[in-house]
Amino acid sequence: DVVDAVRSALTGGPLAGRRVLVTSGPTHEPIDPVRYIANRSSGAQGTAIAEALRALGADVVFVTGPAEVARPEGVEVIEVVTATQMRAAVLGALPVDAGVFAAAVADWRVASASDSKIKKQNGQLPVLEFAENPDILAEVSRLPEGRPGLVVGFAAETDDVVAHATAKRVRKGCDWIVANDVSPATGIMGGSENAVVLISENGSEAWPRMGKREVARRLALRIAAALGAG
Amino acid sequence: DVVDAVRSALTGGPLAGRRVLVTSGPTHEPIDPVRYIANRSSGAQGTAIAEALRALGADVVFVTGPAEVARPEGVEVIEVVTATQMRAAVLGALPVDAGVFAAAVADWRVASASDSKIKKQNGQLPVLEFAENPDILAEVSRLPEGRPGLVVGFAAETDDVVAHATAKRVRKGCDWIVANDVSPATGIMGGSENAVVLISENGSEAWPRMGKREVARRLALRIAAALGAG
Repeated sequence: DVVDAVRSALTGGPLAGRRVLVTSGPTHEPIDPVRYIANRSSGAQGTAIAEALRALGADVVFVTGPAEVARPEGVEVIEVVTATQMRAAVLGALPVDAGVFAAAVADWRVASASDSKIKKQNGQLPVLEFAENPDILAEVSRLPEGRPGLVVGFAAETDDVVAHATAKRVRKGCDWIVANDVSPATGIMGGSENAVVLISENGSEAWPRMGKREVARRLALRIAAALGAG
Repeated sequence: DVVDAVRSALTGGPLAGRRVLVTSGPTHEPIDPVRYIANRSSGAQGTAIAEALRALGADVVFVTGPAEVARPEGVEVIEVVTATQMRAAVLGALPVDAGVFAAAVADWRVASASDSKIKKQNGQLPVLEFAENPDILAEVSRLPEGRPGLVVGFAAETDDVVAHATAKRVRKGCDWIVANDVSPATGIMGGSENAVVLISENGSEAWPRMGKREVARRLALRIAAALGAG
């Protein structure tokens, strides 16, 4: 907010001189030249996090898929479409002090993507073969050299949020998971509010439901504290 | 444009008292609560057609999927997401004097769509079973009662545009097909220009490349002429 921005301008902010990577938005995976698989991420939470980190003085590299919301101001923006492109952009942006992986990266791409439009033929249905996309969060979390000092993943769950996200933290090798419930009934996906649980090695911490900008502000302050800059 | 709008305001326009349906935009077909299959239609051409018909005095019903571009002014807008929903909206909007089916309706939906987020599990890949979507253009073209006097379909092709579109006109039973080449190299999909071929029982007529608004204006004038209102 304004107070943070003014403080950062005057003092450099607690994250001055720190480089932080944020991924955001969906990825789109082509089926053919006109069709693709997408997901419902608007990019609102990732964009708010980039802005909050910037407000604390960080140099932010923002790697975004084709998101609906306007790009954040004052940060380096790298636009990508697919998960494969996002991986390349992320690895190219390293080294960073912290990485926040808020993008909703497609788990799978279509291995049999066609160069020409798949035609509708006499009731025949298409067969889509899938291939697993690179797991960017796990790869960065396990980098033998150049791993960010803090790696924050996100988990969008529709049931057993804490259990799934706690398991995900261990499986990916990241430091924190910001988990939320994206069941349609919550209205969070595409909405302006979020209700998150922060999972770390110390367990889980449920935050009250609040605006996505406030979630971003709190998370940015926690990141600053974890980097010893708070 | 302004001249048309002023003329319509003064005289009622050549399509005054005529009701025209326009479909536009993509459809989204859910895979699970966070993933869906989409297509690259921006809705720009369909929106321009609705506006051009309105400028000639028509009462326009505009049935749109989740399109990027702003909705047209001065028309009845019905928002839908899936092809199944679009079919219901179209049938509910009849009778009309003419129907322009510019939407990029998904040919298939996911028959096995899941109510909870499909999890990534040990390298296992998802199996998506597809079902054929309703063919709205063919259904309306073949209505035994209440068929619009003029049915105009669209064909987005990536190769053999005229041959594919000519066959499509006969297969669907519509009166005209507005065909275009959406190969990535043309830059038409998502761009501001279009190069179309108008296919009718009289053969094919290639229009020069022009702005989507100008394509819309010419098409609206042709529709007015065909309805005996030109």
